[in-house]
Amino acid sequence: MSEKPPIAHLIRLHDLPEQDVDDLLDLSSRIKRRPGGFQLNGKSVGMLFFRGSLRTRASFEAAMQQLGGHSINLNASSDFWELETTVGGRMDGKSPEHVKDAAAVLSRYVNVLAIRPALGGQSWAIDRRDEDIQSWARYAEVPVINMESALWHPLQSLADLLTLRETLGPLRKKKLAIVWTNSPTPASSAVTNSLLLSAARAGMDVRVAHPSGYELDDEVLSSAAHIAEIAGTTVETGLSAKDAVSGAHVVYARSWQGIEDYGNPTLSASRRARERGWMIDEALMRQGADAKLMHAMPVRRNLEVTDEVFDGARSLIYAQAENRLHTQKAVLVKFNRT
Amino acid sequence: MSEKPPIAHLIRLHDLPEQDVDDLLDLSSRIKRRPGGFQLNGKSVGMLFFRGSLRTRASFEAAMQQLGGHSINLNASSDFWELETTVGGRMDGKSPEHVKDAAAVLSRYVNVLAIRPALGGQSWAIDRRDEDIQSWARYAEVPVINMESALWHPLQSLADLLTLRETLGPLRKKKLAIVWTNSPTPASSAVTNSLLLSAARAGMDVRVAHPSGYELDDEVLSSAAHIAEIAGTTVETGLSAKDAVSGAHVVYARSWQGIEDYGNPTLSASRRARERGWMIDEALMRQGADAKLMHAMPVRRNLEVTDEVFDGARSLIYAQAENRLHTQKAVLVKFNRT
Amino acid sequence: MSEKPPIAHLIRLHDLPEQDVDDLLDLSSRIKRRPGGFQLNGKSVGMLFFRGSLRTRASFEAAMQQLGGHSINLNASSDFWELETTVGGRMDGKSPEHVKDAAAVLSRYVNVLAIRPALGGQSWAIDRRDEDIQSWARYAEVPVINMESALWHPLQSLADLLTLRETLGPLRKKKLAIVWTNSPTPASSAVTNSLLLSAARAGMDVRVAHPSGYELDDEVLSSAAHIAEIAGTTVETGLSAKDAVSGAHVVYARSWQGIEDYGNPTLSASRRARERGWMIDEALMRQGADAKLMHAMPVRRNLEVTDEVFDGARSLIYAQAENRLHTQKAVLVKFNRT
Repeated sequence: MSEKPPIAHLIRLHDLPEQDVDDLLDLSSRIKRRPGGFQLNGKSVGMLFFRGSLRTRASFEAAMQQLGGHSINLNASSDFWELETTVGGRMDGKSPEHVKDAAAVLSRYVNVLAIRPALGGQSWAIDRRDEDIQSWARYAEVPVINMESALWHPLQSLADLLTLRETLGPLRKKKLAIVWTNSPTPASSAVTNSLLLSAARAGMDVRVAHPSGYELDDEVLSSAAHIAEIAGTTVETGLSAKDAVSGAHVVYARSWQGIEDYGNPTLSASRRARERGWMIDEALMRQGADAKLMHAMPVRRNLEVTDEVFDGARSLIYAQAENRLHTQKAVLVKFNRT
Repeated sequence: MSEKPPIAHLIRLHDLPEQDVDDLLDLSSRIKRRPGGFQLNGKSVGMLFFRGSLRTRASFEAAMQQLGGHSINLNASSDFWELETTVGGRMDGKSPEHVKDAAAVLSRYVNVLAIRPALGGQSWAIDRRDEDIQSWARYAEVPVINMESALWHPLQSLADLLTLRETLGPLRKKKLAIVWTNSPTPASSAVTNSLLLSAARAGMDVRVAHPSGYELDDEVLSSAAHIAEIAGTTVETGLSAKDAVSGAHVVYARSWQGIEDYGNPTLSASRRARERGWMIDEALMRQGADAKLMHAMPVRRNLEVTDEVFDGARSLIYAQAENRLHTQKAVLVKFNRT
Repeated sequence: MSEKPPIAHLIRLHDLPEQDVDDLLDLSSRIKRRPGGFQLNGKSVGMLFFRGSLRTRASFEAAMQQLGGHSINLNASSDFWELETTVGGRMDGKSPEHVKDAAAVLSRYVNVLAIRPALGGQSWAIDRRDEDIQSWARYAEVPVINMESALWHPLQSLADLLTLRETLGPLRKKKLAIVWTNSPTPASSAVTNSLLLSAARAGMDVRVAHPSGYELDDEVLSSAAHIAEIAGTTVETGLSAKDAVSGAHVVYARSWQGIEDYGNPTLSASRRARERGWMIDEALMRQGADAKLMHAMPVRRNLEVTDEVFDGARSLIYAQAENRLHTQKAVLVKFNRT
């Protein structure tokens, strides 16, 4: 009697063999050219949102529908409830159900589960453990797709990689500048973290610019350095915007929360007030090598990026957002219980 | 090299050529007789609700599904966020995304966008500009359908026109009475405005009854007068209920907010308290010419209309609500990116 | 000219002839073996949730999708509003629409309506009337399916009966113990009530254990006694857990609210605090005859049931939850307007 093979989840993109990522991108391109060519008739994806979403939700649902399948959307706020993740405890608190049980049951109703977990937002030391998404992957009996946890956003990175390939051709030795931008509602560093590792593994030279106090997570940086070494490329962080963008082929704008002031809105706001200069404008872009602009959206115009750059010929933003649709179709084709 | 043709949106029904409205109604009737005859397989509509809805949401979603397509439902409260409409501003306020960007991105995921914008509810001078729905139409790259803005409700008017045609045959010179009714939760004047212009253009004699202080928007009244002149018919407003209903073939009950007390709930409530007599009952209906009753729903029974009239032989209410389904199918067939 | 036949609703399972319940279970088994064999292409179900749901919503929506149909989900909190049920009243209160009108209109858009009504939660004397679900059944022009009212949960009972049949074979003279369990968020007695009557009618010996103060509704108990008499079996209530489980083939754990402290959270909490011993553990289970465990979920682990029992070989929980999917497909096939 043979053991069941482990279920393939998509929690962090760099957990996949490099060849699998390339295959996903190739499949994405084929689907983009011929949208009708892949069918998931009768399959369904359960989408659980513990935080709001516009792009991810709309693109994921459209992807599934256009492949012939269905999505079941469950919103933690209006449709159900908080889930317990602690193992072995006496559940006499707020959560009426354990993620183990929710995952096991939903696995019997759908072919794949896509999860956007909540963020505690109080402590980076806690949130960085990504316990919720790990719990779903541990207990689900169908593939689990991470729709952005505290640390990782594999779906965004896939769309980013496809956009970079379409724009630059082979990525090896191409220069990517990731530049922190100012926003009153910074995201977690998930998009940045996933991009940093994905771009390095693809052989890009990656330079990250950010003000002091916005350093990325230590373990993420170690992983990035390790991956860069294997790929024979470089990752530099803590640069000024100008130094990072100099000679870059692509500038990726992103606002992320500082680890030191994580969970401290007052400190966070006062620090940010000192960094109003971190906006991408044409003068900065001219430091690059015919540099293009990317952004995972939503974008705060004229605060993160000027209208001139955002609406101009350098901008890949909408093409990048569209690629969410195509790459997520590829993910759904590859990650579902047959 | 040819320019892209402009995208056909459905924001106000009277922006369409008269022949196009007739064609939509003819198509609605054909679809009603043979529901299976029109297919939108693989197409999807993005429905964005910035305000609640029962009838519009259910009928629109059912329409798309029965045509073979899919709907993606996004609720501003639970699924995403407020959108910025100001052009060129520094976005450091509450809204994390500009409608320009949301519209551009969603246009890449779906074939048509249906929007129910929020109402400010504070100032009629501001709300009457219909800025949100205009912004969606300006920036979307697929057809935009107005699911009721502050000023206009084209989908309701289409269902109203179909119901009127089914009941009265040719509409020219038929008499329509629109009668204000009392409700603690009055709607905007959108349904009334759209009906006034649509019925006049169809050649109906339209009489509007309302208490003093509930006059319709000046520009709407000018447009109505202009349209009536072209159509060789008449529009009268400010009548008593009895004068309006006298000889009418159809009585259309509707509660709308007064412009003078718009955004002032205290004044609004005290004024309304003086107008408790504005309820449609059998005695009033007998002033008409075998008059039928219409209402866009939801209806407050025995406050706006007596049960006797609402549940009696005069009532077209449910047929009218059903026609939302058939007319919206026609709209979806005509307004989608091919 | 013939009268229209009455519409078949599913409000209480024991309103169906016994043969119909058996047929539903047989159909469920066939669908479970061959999921692709039954089609509801182009049909749609309107699902209205006036309370949250995870399992019911996901399994019902998946059931409809896998049969080729569509579901339209309406949430009372985010999508629409409270509905009036009083007949003939002047609707000048909070509810802007009568259930009569909502039911009539939605009946024109979909083939079947599935309703999870709100619970007042203040008075058992009021809630036990099940007025909301009765109103939907009275006014709808398509079949209405009860997705759990204050008194009854027919969909859960169907899944329970299928699970019992799969586990025990013929149910006659098999012993079922329903055991109250401690939870800070007890459910209504709907699951227990429906199971009690369904199991008795199937010929099972049913014993119910609960602390003093948690007696079931008098009329439910009368009906159960009456049904048991006809079926030639027995129903005993008010037992200790040990007495109920002794010799039982299946132990069904369920927490329900006491009638005496219904709507009184302070009294409810203080009573419950005295009953911490009401947890299912291995020692209790050993009193049965190779007893299996069932639970309608969500379950509070190590408060209602120990992990050891819940995750062990006795547990039928996940199979039971999966059977929601198969039995609801059978319900949708049988209860829809053709």
